[in-house]
Amino acid sequence: MRSRSARSARTHGPAPKRRHGKPGASPGTLPPIPDARPSLVEVISYCQQEVTEGTAADAAAARALALPGRVNLIVVTGVEDHALLEGFGEQFGLHRLALEDVAHTHQRPKFDEYEDQDFVVLRVPDPEGQTTQQICLFVAPELLICFLERPLPALDAIRERIRQKRPRLIAGGSDYLAYAIIDLVVDLYFPVIDAYDKRIDEIEDTIFTNPRRVEVPVIHEMKRDLAAWQRISWQTRDVILRMLGEEIPTLSQTTRLHLRDCLDHARQVADLNEAARDRATGLLDLYLSVMSNRMNEIMRVLTVIATIFMPLAFIAGVYGMNFDTTKSRLNMPELGWAWGYPFALSLMAGTAAGLLLYFRKQGWFGGDDRKEP
Amino acid sequence: MRSRSARSARTHGPAPKRRHGKPGASPGTLPPIPDARPSLVEVISYCQQEVTEGTAADAAAARALALPGRVNLIVVTGVEDHALLEGFGEQFGLHRLALEDVAHTHQRPKFDEYEDQDFVVLRVPDPEGQTTQQICLFVAPELLICFLERPLPALDAIRERIRQKRPRLIAGGSDYLAYAIIDLVVDLYFPVIDAYDKRIDEIEDTIFTNPRRVEVPVIHEMKRDLAAWQRISWQTRDVILRMLGEEIPTLSQTTRLHLRDCLDHARQVADLNEAARDRATGLLDLYLSVMSNRMNEIMRVLTVIATIFMPLAFIAGVYGMNFDTTKSRLNMPELGWAWGYPFALSLMAGTAAGLLLYFRKQGWFGGDDRKEP
Amino acid sequence: MRSRSARSARTHGPAPKRRHGKPGASPGTLPPIPDARPSLVEVISYCQQEVTEGTAADAAAARALALPGRVNLIVVTGVEDHALLEGFGEQFGLHRLALEDVAHTHQRPKFDEYEDQDFVVLRVPDPEGQTTQQICLFVAPELLICFLERPLPALDAIRERIRQKRPRLIAGGSDYLAYAIIDLVVDLYFPVIDAYDKRIDEIEDTIFTNPRRVEVPVIHEMKRDLAAWQRISWQTRDVILRMLGEEIPTLSQTTRLHLRDCLDHARQVADLNEAARDRATGLLDLYLSVMSNRMNEIMRVLTVIATIFMPLAFIAGVYGMNFDTTKSRLNMPELGWAWGYPFALSLMAGTAAGLLLYFRKQGWFGGDDRKEP
Amino acid sequence: MRSRSARSARTHGPAPKRRHGKPGASPGTLPPIPDARPSLVEVISYCQQEVTEGTAADAAAARALALPGRVNLIVVTGVEDHALLEGFGEQFGLHRLALEDVAHTHQRPKFDEYEDQDFVVLRVPDPEGQTTQQICLFVAPELLICFLERPLPALDAIRERIRQKRPRLIAGGSDYLAYAIIDLVVDLYFPVIDAYDKRIDEIEDTIFTNPRRVEVPVIHEMKRDLAAWQRISWQTRDVILRMLGEEIPTLSQTTRLHLRDCLDHARQVADLNEAARDRATGLLDLYLSVMSNRMNEIMRVLTVIATIFMPLAFIAGVYGMNFDTTKSRLNMPELGWAWGYPFALSLMAGTAAGLLLYFRKQGWFGGDDRKEP
Amino acid sequence: MRSRSARSARTHGPAPKRRHGKPGASPGTLPPIPDARPSLVEVISYCQQEVTEGTAADAAAARALALPGRVNLIVVTGVEDHALLEGFGEQFGLHRLALEDVAHTHQRPKFDEYEDQDFVVLRVPDPEGQTTQQICLFVAPELLICFLERPLPALDAIRERIRQKRPRLIAGGSDYLAYAIIDLVVDLYFPVIDAYDKRIDEIEDTIFTNPRRVEVPVIHEMKRDLAAWQRISWQTRDVILRMLGEEIPTLSQTTRLHLRDCLDHARQVADLNEAARDRATGLLDLYLSVMSNRMNEIMRVLTVIATIFMPLAFIAGVYGMNFDTTKSRLNMPELGWAWGYPFALSLMAGTAAGLLLYFRKQGWFGGDDRKEP
Repeated sequence: MRSRSARSARTHGPAPKRRHGKPGASPGTLPPIPDARPSLVEVISYCQQEVTEGTAADAAAARALALPGRVNLIVVTGVEDHALLEGFGEQFGLHRLALEDVAHTHQRPKFDEYEDQDFVVLRVPDPEGQTTQQICLFVAPELLICFLERPLPALDAIRERIRQKRPRLIAGGSDYLAYAIIDLVVDLYFPVIDAYDKRIDEIEDTIFTNPRRVEVPVIHEMKRDLAAWQRISWQTRDVILRMLGEEIPTLSQTTRLHLRDCLDHARQVADLNEAARDRATGLLDLYLSVMSNRMNEIMRVLTVIATIFMPLAFIAGVYGMNFDTTKSRLNMPELGWAWGYPFALSLMAGTAAGLLLYFRKQGWFGGDDRKEP
Repeated sequence: MRSRSARSARTHGPAPKRRHGKPGASPGTLPPIPDARPSLVEVISYCQQEVTEGTAADAAAARALALPGRVNLIVVTGVEDHALLEGFGEQFGLHRLALEDVAHTHQRPKFDEYEDQDFVVLRVPDPEGQTTQQICLFVAPELLICFLERPLPALDAIRERIRQKRPRLIAGGSDYLAYAIIDLVVDLYFPVIDAYDKRIDEIEDTIFTNPRRVEVPVIHEMKRDLAAWQRISWQTRDVILRMLGEEIPTLSQTTRLHLRDCLDHARQVADLNEAARDRATGLLDLYLSVMSNRMNEIMRVLTVIATIFMPLAFIAGVYGMNFDTTKSRLNMPELGWAWGYPFALSLMAGTAAGLLLYFRKQGWFGGDDRKEP
Repeated sequence: MRSRSARSARTHGPAPKRRHGKPGASPGTLPPIPDARPSLVEVISYCQQEVTEGTAADAAAARALALPGRVNLIVVTGVEDHALLEGFGEQFGLHRLALEDVAHTHQRPKFDEYEDQDFVVLRVPDPEGQTTQQICLFVAPELLICFLERPLPALDAIRERIRQKRPRLIAGGSDYLAYAIIDLVVDLYFPVIDAYDKRIDEIEDTIFTNPRRVEVPVIHEMKRDLAAWQRISWQTRDVILRMLGEEIPTLSQTTRLHLRDCLDHARQVADLNEAARDRATGLLDLYLSVMSNRMNEIMRVLTVIATIFMPLAFIAGVYGMNFDTTKSRLNMPELGWAWGYPFALSLMAGTAAGLLLYFRKQGWFGGDDRKEP
Repeated sequence: MRSRSARSARTHGPAPKRRHGKPGASPGTLPPIPDARPSLVEVISYCQQEVTEGTAADAAAARALALPGRVNLIVVTGVEDHALLEGFGEQFGLHRLALEDVAHTHQRPKFDEYEDQDFVVLRVPDPEGQTTQQICLFVAPELLICFLERPLPALDAIRERIRQKRPRLIAGGSDYLAYAIIDLVVDLYFPVIDAYDKRIDEIEDTIFTNPRRVEVPVIHEMKRDLAAWQRISWQTRDVILRMLGEEIPTLSQTTRLHLRDCLDHARQVADLNEAARDRATGLLDLYLSVMSNRMNEIMRVLTVIATIFMPLAFIAGVYGMNFDTTKSRLNMPELGWAWGYPFALSLMAGTAAGLLLYFRKQGWFGGDDRKEP
Repeated sequence: MRSRSARSARTHGPAPKRRHGKPGASPGTLPPIPDARPSLVEVISYCQQEVTEGTAADAAAARALALPGRVNLIVVTGVEDHALLEGFGEQFGLHRLALEDVAHTHQRPKFDEYEDQDFVVLRVPDPEGQTTQQICLFVAPELLICFLERPLPALDAIRERIRQKRPRLIAGGSDYLAYAIIDLVVDLYFPVIDAYDKRIDEIEDTIFTNPRRVEVPVIHEMKRDLAAWQRISWQTRDVILRMLGEEIPTLSQTTRLHLRDCLDHARQVADLNEAARDRATGLLDLYLSVMSNRMNEIMRVLTVIATIFMPLAFIAGVYGMNFDTTKSRLNMPELGWAWGYPFALSLMAGTAAGLLLYFRKQGWFGGDDRKEP
């Protein structure tokens, strides 16, 4: 079994691994990370008339680029620079607990309301569909701050829509923008599930055509990964459900309608995920039953063969005995018959034929069973 | 195993396959489809006095055929012509998000309320009971627009009832008409589940009479398909439940009573579906246990035969040894006995009989076990 | 396996089979049934002073026999005469949808409120405990109409209690009478579950004493039937729960207390049913593990025997070789020994004894394992 | 298997067996029981100053012993004397439906409110932890009537606490006394679950040390019994939950706090029960996997032995052939070699060694596998 | 199997073992424990200006050290000295039922409100991650009493944060302090689950590389322990959920926000725990399927070998028969052929080759199957 190669994929996986803080540490504490990769801060500020873009070195610069009276989208890529995060906390009044969640990139999808901002955490599948990164959104009036662990190429579609001044996006506030990003994230789950579905199709085909090539560890891991994805997709759905359920003053009616549509997509993701997981769970059963059928087939044929040769060998053994035919007429007179050897061979052939006939009649051998009505 | 033919059916299946839009694309966008099949637009307008029917080339023409003061049923067959859909959106004020759902024919059954229209999506089983198409209903006062992917012959029953001016249908508004269509859709699920039940009956029979003819892949697929149907039937039930639960001003008391009846049918569908799925799940267990019983039966008989011939062959082997009887009286004196050969044969027969007796007593052989009290 | 006889029972079963109407047919339509069996209409009218009984040919006659100021129980046995049903609809103002449910005898247990009547559908187990018939109750002030598919002998107990003018029954209104019938129906489930429990006991005994006599199809069907019964008993419980939950003006405090007691019974039925189902599900596992244990026992003993004779036969084979002892002293000198044969036999006996000892020590043979501390 | 002795315990079991009344019988009817054992009626009447105790022959005598202005505990042991029960019904105004539940000792734990009394049914585990009896409590101001099927020694603790005039018990009303009894009953479940836990521990040990001694029927029954206990413990928890949830005027704040504590115990019972049940369910899997591992171990070793002797026997067979060496030099020249026999023996030894080596390398034989890295 | 060593760990385990009180004992009774270990009472009293620490011999001394106008944290380590507990009850007005829970260290995590204090019970994993101890918190304004079974080193982090006068901790009241401790406890679960995850990884690796080294009892116990941990983590989550849900006047908005964050952690613990449990459950299936595959592989190869030698041995047996070639030309003329022996050997070789070819073609032997496309 190629278990090693299969297992190498395990170190990643959709479920985030928690980096443990010291238990008892102050909450809202951001421990410095050595060798932190520098973060990239982009600010896009737009209104009906104009779209301005820029990059900032720190939170204060971003603050300056975020123009009042417009919708300001600040995308921070890389969350290891805790000084930068704290700067954002001060400049934009972000809650410490939320900031801590931004820095610890192992959060479940969740939605928290703070006094003057809503905080959304989601997990974005990476293009290879193996791992996820964490995306955090702070939604305040006229402001949407988005923290990413790693660059997210899919976000370019949003940037492009802003640049093209798409009417609904420009007219909607920061809440509509938040919806657009959430919708984007949800849509990124579909290819992931599709890829699993395709792999399950392939494995099913392999099971039916060439079961010995199936690698149990691969099925096992797929099952586990799909369970992890399912938890994430359920939590994502719950986040959207809670956003719709809560009375969020900043949520316009238009955004609400679109978010409801997005909830539908999230439910569909969860549905497809569940179906894929059910199938993956069934794969192992299927594999085992196909293997067991093949094994039975083999064992039956071999056992039948062995069973037929048993009596034949016995007959040969009998006439191989060395009783002294000279001592008595009773001692193996067959040995002295003129037709003795043909008689013995016929006896063997007859026994074999009889057994074969019996086995076939019982349906233990050959394909008779199938041809019956 | 005829796995190939069995698997060819898999490309369809009740669960709709999502055609992926580009993640990050504007919501409510209808991408043009090349080679879109032309749509057919039928308008039936009726009141107590009169029923008029006609076909329209586009939304504006349909708008013109829909007479005020009557109930207007517009059936659009084929949703690939996005220009037509957009026309309907403009003429009848349909919400863009709903229209997008109409165009993307992979929706789960759902119910959405918009300001001046209710929007229902259901999935209609095709006559062969393998796939589903999507049906979308926009319900507004005096207006019911119904979008179909493909022609739906079953809808003729509704058309006929309108033409015959059936009192309840004519007296009810567009909401009653919507109910009639939903009821029709729900009723189309019964033959599907029945067909599965019949196939399960057949497979059960095959398992008990001729288990080697059973094709595991077929059971496997049936299980998966029934799981997909179950999700759809649960969602259908939920749609009707939500329509009854929400305060829809357009829903008359009469329609409400009928819809409650329809909810009963939907629940029955879900029940039957669940029962069928349980049975399908049990099939594999049943098959494996029957197969394993048969295999055990075979192995036991063959092993018993082998075990009986083992000692016999051993005895024959002993008397086939070449010890020099001339060297000593101790060397195989049996070979020189006058009754040596009969003695050996009797020894063999006795051994065989003893073993057979022992095996029978233990109930390992023959049908003794059954005849015991 | 006696699968055929076992399967013959399957055509019945507690779950009602739906007779399909044509999808799209008008709701509330009662299609005429050819060869409909005639219905029997009985009217019992009672008050504190008097009990009158009679039979009626049609609804109008029943209407005439139902005296005002009394509680009138109308029992209609046989629901295939749709003209009669429509007559009842007109005479007593029964809702068309409810009447349709009466005629289509495949309903799930349910409770519907109409403006001036409550409508209850339950399923009554037949005395053999294999099938159910549908009982429908229309409860209005002073009136209880009860529709039965087939005669229900158990109902005589109610009739008798009316005739004996039992105080609580006479004093209660039609709602108490409805309770009495529902309670009767619920009580009829106990013997059904008991019969299953007894059959499970028997099968368990058979599994432990004579597993090869167990018929897997029988267990399989019992499982399925119990699942169907469970659905029905859950639905029955829900009907009573809803009757208690809803604010039914016609439900007196006394009836409510009694109905709560009846709910307890329904819960107990559901409980017992679930327990029986759990046991039935466990039966197959139990059977397979007992069978597998027995099979293992057999295979082990037989394999041990075969394995012991293998080396013995080999030794015999060695001394059956024909090497020319005259050519060299190295060629099978044992054959020429005076004690050659006894030596060979001892070698065999020693080998067999050694193997037996080893196998016993390993606990592979005989009952040693058990006797260990 | 000692199945018989194991099964003899089954006629009891925690789940109460229903004595069927005739379906359709009047509710609240107490059918006379022939050979009813006489009941014992004890009355304990206490207040801050004084505790009086006495026994009564019938309900009227008990009524007389119950002093006003005090808390009166009436314990009736034995519920088969229906005349006595009816007397209590009349003297103390107990509701007929509740009395019927007292007489039919197969009730699930439940809580019913009547106008002027609360009615609690619980099931008390017997000291052997195999069966339960039914305890019924009528709680009214200043009065607690407790009906028992059989004497309950554990109740003496309560009597003793009254006699010792424990402050909280004396100060509390009849509701506190009811709490004390309920708490006592809940505490009696702990030893039952503990006993099961201990038996599961033992069976686990047996599985790991001596699996062939495990008796599958015993595990099977334990599973079923634990399922029955679980249902009862869930229902007991629900009873207390409902008592706390409902607005019972007679329930003082102190009693409420204590009952909440008791609810905690009931939840713990349900928890422990569930854990025990999970373990019992796992036992069978564990047993089968251990057995299957042992069986595989045996079969592998035996098959390896057989497979090694197969080729050896074949070689011996070859040199046992009788080709005429005098006819040609090609005919079995080995037989005439001086080193023929040693050659043949070496060939055999070499073959055996080669196979053994191969098997060991494949890890099919011996314990090599374990010693690998 | 090294079952003994594996099982020795079982006497501990996360689930607390109940020390049974006598059923019927007065609630709120603290039975004296002989040989009770002495308790350690620490008092930390802090406000913005000052932090004072001290140890007390009894409750009265602790009372004296707890300064008004400050937040006072009293940590009592060791709960076997019931006199001390009762002293605390009197000095600080702790409710008797809560005190009883403190003394009986087998409580489930729970949250109880009393009139003037909130009472929280949690379970703290020990550093080895095998067992838990009970921590009880009484939260009153300006006062937090914390009872521990054993010293809890992790608590030092809190003490240190107080000494360092961390602003949020100093500014928050006793409720914030309670949150800090609860958060600490929740964080202690992460390493426990991680350790299980790591062990599961190892066992998976062992299953794929060296399945015979896997110890089933270890997997079995891990499953059970994870089930116990899961119950505890669910209950812990529920405690926090209830604290947030209830209207606790002493809970400040800040504490509420932090507690919500802590709830997130608790949910994550429950999630990870569930995932680990799912994996552990899958381990046994995985192990069995890998073992069964290996076994099948072995059996197939061995059976194929046996089956090939069967016919060969038979041929050898035939030419070992002793028919008298001198009596007739028909009697084994092959024996007298010049090429007789080579002919026989070729016959054997041909048979073996034919069988091998057939087996390979059927994919029963060697690795052919894999190399197919």
